[in-house]
Amino acid sequence: MLPEIKATKSSCEWEPPLSINQKSNKSRIIRHKEGFRWSSVKADKYKKEGQSWSSVIRMALIGDFGESVKFSLRYFEILPKGYSSLEKHKHEHVVICIRGRGKVTLDKKTYKVGYLDTVYISPDTIHQFLNPFEEPFGFFCIVDKKRDKPIVIEEKND
Amino acid sequence: MLPEIKATKSSCEWEPPLSINQKSNKSRIIRHKEGFRWSSVKADKYKKEGQSWSSVIRMALIGDFGESVKFSLRYFEILPKGYSSLEKHKHEHVVICIRGRGKVTLDKKTYKVGYLDTVYISPDTIHQFLNPFEEPFGFFCIVDKKRDKPIVIEEKND
Repeated sequence: MLPEIKATKSSCEWEPPLSINQKSNKSRIIRHKEGFRWSSVKADKYKKEGQSWSSVIRMALIGDFGESVKFSLRYFEILPKGYSSLEKHKHEHVVICIRGRGKVTLDKKTYKVGYLDTVYISPDTIHQFLNPFEEPFGFFCIVDKKRDKPIVIEEKND
Repeated sequence: MLPEIKATKSSCEWEPPLSINQKSNKSRIIRHKEGFRWSSVKADKYKKEGQSWSSVIRMALIGDFGESVKFSLRYFEILPKGYSSLEKHKHEHVVICIRGRGKVTLDKKTYKVGYLDTVYISPDTIHQFLNPFEEPFGFFCIVDKKRDKPIVIEEKND
Protein backbone atom coordinates (compact mmCIF):
# COMPACT_ATOMS: atom_id res chain seq x y z
CA MET A 1 0.00 0.00 0.00
CA LEU A 2 1.40 3.38 -0.93
CA PRO A 3 1.14 6.00 1.77
CA GLU A 4 -1.22 8.87 1.09
CA ILE A 5 0.55 12.19 1.20
CA LYS A 6 -1.26 15.33 2.28
CA ALA A 7 -0.21 18.43 0.39
CA THR A 8 1.50 20.99 2.58
CA LYS A 9 2.00 24.68 1.97
CA SER A 10 5.50 24.49 3.41
CA SER A 11 8.21 25.61 1.05
CA CYS A 12 10.24 22.60 2.15
CA GLU A 13 10.29 19.42 0.20
CA TRP A 14 8.49 16.62 1.88
CA GLU A 15 9.64 13.03 1.88
CA PRO A 16 6.86 10.48 1.92
CA PRO A 17 6.25 8.90 5.31
CA LEU A 18 7.01 5.23 5.61
CA SER A 19 4.38 2.80 4.64
CA ILE A 20 3.10 0.82 7.58
CA ASN A 21 4.80 -2.25 6.16
CA GLN A 22 8.19 -0.59 6.14
CA LYS A 23 9.97 -0.88 9.47
CA SER A 24 12.57 1.78 10.19
CA ASN A 25 13.70 4.21 12.80
CA LYS A 26 13.63 7.19 10.47
CA SER A 27 12.03 10.41 11.68
CA ARG A 28 8.67 11.02 10.07
CA ILE A 29 5.47 13.03 10.21
CA ILE A 30 2.18 11.17 10.23
CA ARG A 31 -0.12 13.72 8.65
CA HIS A 32 -3.59 14.16 10.03
CA LYS A 33 -6.28 14.06 7.41
CA GLU A 34 -9.71 15.46 8.17
CA GLY A 35 -12.02 13.48 10.42
CA PHE A 36 -9.54 11.90 12.85
CA ARG A 37 -7.78 9.80 10.28
CA TRP A 38 -4.09 9.84 9.39
CA SER A 39 -2.16 9.32 6.19
CA SER A 40 -0.84 5.75 5.84
CA VAL A 41 -2.57 4.62 9.06
CA LYS A 42 -5.25 2.02 8.59
CA ALA A 43 -8.18 1.17 10.82
CA ASP A 44 -8.11 -2.29 12.37
CA LYS A 45 -10.62 -4.21 14.36
CA TYR A 46 -10.22 -3.62 18.06
CA LYS A 47 -10.02 -7.31 18.99
CA LYS A 48 -11.03 -10.64 17.57
CA GLU A 49 -14.76 -11.05 17.13
CA GLY A 50 -16.73 -12.86 19.78
CA GLN A 51 -15.60 -10.90 22.77
CA SER A 52 -17.73 -8.52 24.77
CA TRP A 53 -17.24 -5.34 22.77
CA SER A 54 -19.06 -3.47 20.00
CA SER A 55 -18.29 -0.88 17.33
CA VAL A 56 -14.67 -0.09 18.19
CA ILE A 57 -12.01 0.92 15.63
CA ARG A 58 -8.27 0.74 16.44
CA MET A 59 -5.39 2.51 14.67
CA ALA A 60 -1.73 1.93 15.51
CA LEU A 61 0.27 5.15 15.10
CA ILE A 62 3.59 4.57 16.86
CA GLY A 63 5.36 1.58 18.37
CA ASP A 64 4.98 -1.20 15.85
CA PHE A 65 6.94 0.29 12.97
CA GLY A 66 10.58 -0.10 13.88
CA GLU A 67 10.75 2.49 16.65
CA SER A 68 12.68 1.62 19.80
CA VAL A 69 10.37 3.49 22.18
CA LYS A 70 9.10 1.50 25.14
CA PHE A 71 5.47 2.48 24.47
CA SER A 72 2.80 2.28 21.79
CA LEU A 73 0.48 5.07 20.69
CA ARG A 74 -2.86 4.03 19.32
CA TYR A 75 -6.09 5.86 18.41
CA PHE A 76 -9.40 4.22 19.25
CA GLU A 77 -12.84 5.26 18.16
CA ILE A 78 -16.07 3.99 19.62
CA LEU A 79 -19.14 4.54 17.48
CA PRO A 80 -22.45 5.64 19.01
CA LYS A 81 -23.83 2.91 21.29
CA GLY A 82 -20.51 1.04 21.18
CA TYR A 83 -18.26 -0.04 24.03
CA SER A 84 -14.88 -1.61 24.67
CA SER A 85 -14.63 -4.84 26.64
CA LEU A 86 -14.90 -4.70 30.42
CA GLU A 87 -11.43 -5.86 31.37
CA LYS A 88 -8.44 -5.64 33.65
CA HIS A 89 -4.69 -6.15 33.30
CA LYS A 90 -1.43 -5.36 35.03
CA HIS A 91 -0.39 -2.76 32.47
CA GLU A 92 -1.60 0.80 32.69
CA HIS A 93 -3.59 2.87 30.21
CA VAL A 94 -3.09 6.55 29.53
CA VAL A 95 -5.99 7.91 27.50
CA ILE A 96 -6.40 11.38 25.98
CA CYS A 97 -9.95 12.08 24.79
CA ILE A 98 -9.92 13.89 21.47
CA ARG A 99 -13.17 13.34 19.59
CA GLY A 100 -16.70 13.73 20.93
CA ARG A 101 -17.37 12.49 24.42
CA GLY A 102 -17.88 9.22 26.19
CA LYS A 103 -17.90 7.45 29.50
CA VAL A 104 -15.27 5.47 31.33
CA THR A 105 -15.91 2.90 34.04
CA LEU A 106 -13.14 2.64 36.63
CA ASP A 107 -13.94 -0.22 39.00
CA LYS A 108 -17.44 0.51 40.30
CA LYS A 109 -17.88 4.09 39.11
CA THR A 110 -18.57 5.60 35.71
CA TYR A 111 -17.52 9.08 34.66
CA LYS A 112 -18.26 11.29 31.68
CA VAL A 113 -15.18 12.36 29.75
CA GLY A 114 -14.74 14.97 27.04
CA TYR A 115 -12.19 16.88 25.01
CA LEU A 116 -8.61 16.55 26.30
CA ASP A 117 -9.63 14.92 29.55
CA THR A 118 -6.77 12.54 30.33
CA VAL A 119 -7.43 9.23 32.06
CA TYR A 120 -4.83 7.22 33.93
CA ILE A 121 -5.91 3.62 34.56
CA SER A 122 -3.78 1.93 37.20
CA PRO A 123 -2.85 -1.77 37.27
CA ASP A 124 -5.76 -4.18 37.79
CA THR A 125 -8.46 -1.52 37.63
CA ILE A 126 -11.53 -3.04 35.99
CA HIS A 127 -12.37 -0.63 33.21
CA GLN A 128 -14.48 -0.04 30.12
CA PHE A 129 -15.02 2.78 27.64
CA LEU A 130 -18.55 3.44 26.44
CA ASN A 131 -20.23 5.75 23.97
CA PRO A 132 -23.88 6.33 24.83
CA PHE A 133 -23.85 9.54 22.77
CA GLU A 134 -24.75 10.39 19.16
CA GLU A 135 -21.27 11.20 17.81
CA PRO A 136 -18.12 9.02 17.60
CA PHE A 137 -15.99 9.01 20.74
CA GLY A 138 -12.27 9.00 19.90
CA PHE A 139 -9.19 8.88 22.09
CA PHE A 140 -5.47 8.24 22.03
CA CYS A 141 -4.34 5.39 24.24
CA ILE A 142 -0.71 5.00 25.28
CA VAL A 143 0.52 1.75 26.79
CA ASP A 144 3.86 0.13 27.55
CA LYS A 145 4.99 -1.85 24.52
CA LYS A 146 5.75 -4.89 26.67
CA ARG A 147 2.52 -5.67 28.46
CA ASP A 148 0.29 -8.45 29.71
CA LYS A 149 -2.87 -9.67 28.02
CA PRO A 150 -6.20 -8.26 29.23
CA ILE A 151 -8.57 -10.45 31.21
CA VAL A 152 -12.13 -9.90 30.00
CA ILE A 153 -14.63 -9.66 32.84
CA GLU A 154 -17.88 -11.47 32.21
CA GLU A 155 -20.84 -9.26 32.98
CA LYS A 156 -23.54 -10.88 35.06
CA ASN A 157 -27.04 -10.68 33.64
CA ASP A 158 -29.17 -11.20 36.75
CA MET B 1 -1.92 23.11 46.32
CA LEU B 2 -5.44 21.78 46.19
CA PRO B 3 -6.47 20.37 42.85
CA GLU B 4 -9.09 22.34 40.96
CA ILE B 5 -12.12 20.23 40.15
CA LYS B 6 -14.12 20.83 37.02
CA ALA B 7 -17.86 20.39 37.49
CA THR B 8 -19.29 17.48 35.55
CA LYS B 9 -22.88 16.78 34.63
CA SER B 10 -22.40 13.10 35.35
CA SER B 11 -24.73 11.66 37.94
CA CYS B 12 -21.78 9.75 39.36
CA GLU B 13 -19.85 11.00 42.30
CA TRP B 14 -16.42 12.23 41.45
CA GLU B 15 -13.38 11.81 43.64
CA PRO B 16 -10.85 14.62 43.41
CA PRO B 17 -7.80 13.76 41.34
CA LEU B 18 -4.54 13.49 43.19
CA SER B 19 -2.56 16.60 43.77
CA ILE B 20 0.70 16.62 41.88
CA ASN B 21 2.54 16.26 45.18
CA GLN B 22 0.74 13.05 46.01
CA LYS B 23 2.38 10.01 44.45
CA SER B 24 0.15 7.02 43.92
CA ASN B 25 -0.88 4.47 41.37
CA LYS B 26 -4.58 5.19 41.77
CA SER B 27 -6.67 5.56 38.62
CA ARG B 28 -7.63 9.16 37.99
CA ILE B 29 -9.01 11.62 35.48
CA ILE B 30 -7.03 14.77 34.79
CA ARG B 31 -9.78 17.15 33.74
CA HIS B 32 -9.19 19.51 30.88
CA LYS B 33 -10.07 23.07 31.66
CA GLU B 34 -10.58 25.53 28.84
CA GLY B 35 -7.57 26.82 26.96
CA PHE B 36 -5.30 23.76 26.99
CA ARG B 37 -4.82 23.70 30.73
CA TRP B 38 -5.64 20.84 33.09
CA SER B 39 -6.86 20.68 36.68
CA SER B 40 -4.03 20.18 39.16
CA VAL B 41 -1.36 20.40 36.43
CA LYS B 42 0.96 23.34 36.73
CA ALA B 43 3.07 25.02 34.06
CA ASP B 44 6.82 24.73 34.51
CA LYS B 45 9.69 26.32 32.71
CA TYR B 46 10.83 24.18 29.81
CA LYS B 47 14.50 24.10 30.88
CA LYS B 48 16.88 26.11 33.00
CA GLU B 49 17.42 29.65 31.79
CA GLY B 50 20.43 30.44 29.67
CA GLN B 51 19.96 27.79 27.03
CA SER B 52 19.02 28.45 23.45
CA TRP B 53 15.22 28.48 23.75
CA SER B 54 12.49 31.07 24.15
CA SER B 55 8.87 31.23 25.35
CA VAL B 56 8.24 27.54 26.02
CA ILE B 57 5.90 26.22 28.74
CA ARG B 58 6.06 22.60 29.94
CA MET B 59 3.40 20.62 31.82
CA ALA B 60 3.93 17.12 33.16
CA LEU B 61 0.72 15.08 32.94
CA ILE B 62 1.73 11.45 33.42
CA GLY B 63 4.89 9.63 34.46
CA ASP B 64 6.19 11.51 37.46
CA PHE B 65 3.35 10.88 39.87
CA GLY B 66 3.76 7.32 41.07
CA GLU B 67 2.75 5.55 37.87
CA SER B 68 4.79 2.54 36.78
CA VAL B 69 4.48 3.22 33.04
CA LYS B 70 7.74 3.27 31.10
CA PHE B 71 6.93 6.62 29.48
CA SER B 72 6.11 10.22 30.36
CA LEU B 73 3.37 12.36 28.84
CA ARG B 74 3.99 16.08 28.79
CA TYR B 75 2.26 19.05 27.13
CA PHE B 76 4.42 21.82 25.71
CA GLU B 77 3.34 25.18 24.46
CA ILE B 78 5.46 27.54 22.41
CA LEU B 79 4.29 31.14 22.38
CA PRO B 80 4.36 33.21 19.16
CA LYS B 81 7.96 33.77 18.03
CA GLY B 82 9.21 31.17 20.53
CA TYR B 83 11.27 28.05 19.89
CA SER B 84 12.62 25.01 21.71
CA SER B 85 16.35 24.36 21.79
CA LEU B 86 18.01 22.85 18.73
CA GLU B 87 19.13 19.53 20.16
CA LYS B 88 19.71 15.84 19.72
CA HIS B 89 19.63 12.77 21.96
CA LYS B 90 19.43 9.00 21.82
CA HIS B 91 15.85 8.88 23.07
CA GLU B 92 12.93 9.34 20.71
CA HIS B 93 10.16 11.93 20.71
CA VAL B 94 6.55 11.27 19.80
CA VAL B 95 4.69 14.55 19.36
CA ILE B 96 0.98 15.11 18.75
CA CYS B 97 0.16 18.66 17.68
CA ILE B 98 -2.97 19.89 19.38
CA ARG B 99 -3.06 23.70 19.54
CA GLY B 100 -2.42 26.13 16.70
CA ARG B 101 0.36 25.31 14.31
CA GLY B 102 4.11 25.41 14.22
CA LYS B 103 7.20 24.18 12.51
CA VAL B 104 9.55 21.30 13.24
CA THR B 105 13.13 21.01 12.06
CA LEU B 106 14.30 17.42 11.50
CA ASP B 107 17.99 17.46 10.62
CA LYS B 108 18.30 19.83 7.68
CA LYS B 109 14.65 20.26 6.76
CA THR B 110 11.81 22.20 8.34
CA TYR B 111 8.16 21.24 8.04
CA LYS B 112 4.90 22.96 8.94
CA VAL B 113 2.75 20.97 11.34
CA GLY B 114 -0.85 21.43 12.41
CA TYR B 115 -3.73 19.85 14.28
CA LEU B 116 -3.20 16.16 15.10
CA ASP B 117 -0.14 15.81 12.90
CA THR B 118 2.02 13.28 14.74
CA VAL B 119 5.80 13.54 14.61
CA TYR B 120 8.19 10.68 15.33
CA ILE B 121 11.75 11.87 15.99
CA SER B 122 14.26 9.04 15.75
CA PRO B 123 17.47 8.72 17.83
CA ASP B 124 20.12 11.37 17.15
CA THR B 125 17.96 13.45 14.81
CA ILE B 126 18.84 17.12 15.33
CA HIS B 127 15.49 18.79 15.94
CA GLN B 128 13.75 21.95 17.04
CA PHE B 129 10.16 23.15 17.38
CA LEU B 130 9.37 26.71 16.35
CA ASN B 131 6.36 28.98 16.40
CA PRO B 132 6.60 31.72 13.77
CA PHE B 133 2.82 32.18 13.88
CA GLU B 134 0.49 34.47 15.82
CA GLU B 135 -1.19 31.92 18.09
CA PRO B 136 0.31 29.56 20.71
CA PHE B 137 1.56 26.24 19.33
CA GLY B 138 0.82 23.37 21.71
CA PHE B 139 1.64 19.68 21.53
CA PHE B 140 1.80 16.53 23.58
CA CYS B 141 5.23 14.94 23.74
CA ILE B 142 5.70 11.34 24.84
CA VAL B 143 9.16 10.02 25.74
CA ASP B 144 10.59 6.96 27.46
CA LYS B 145 10.79 7.63 31.18
CA LYS B 146 14.39 6.42 31.30
CA ARG B 147 16.25 8.57 28.78
CA ASP B 148 19.49 10.36 28.06
CA LYS B 149 20.07 14.08 28.43
CA PRO B 150 19.72 16.25 25.31
CA ILE B 151 22.81 17.74 23.70
CA VAL B 152 22.12 21.34 22.72
CA ILE B 153 23.47 22.21 19.28
CA GLU B 154 25.08 25.63 19.06
CA GLU B 155 23.76 27.55 16.08
CA LYS B 156 26.39 29.20 13.94
CA ASN B 157 25.91 32.89 13.33
CA ASP B 158 27.98 33.43 10.22
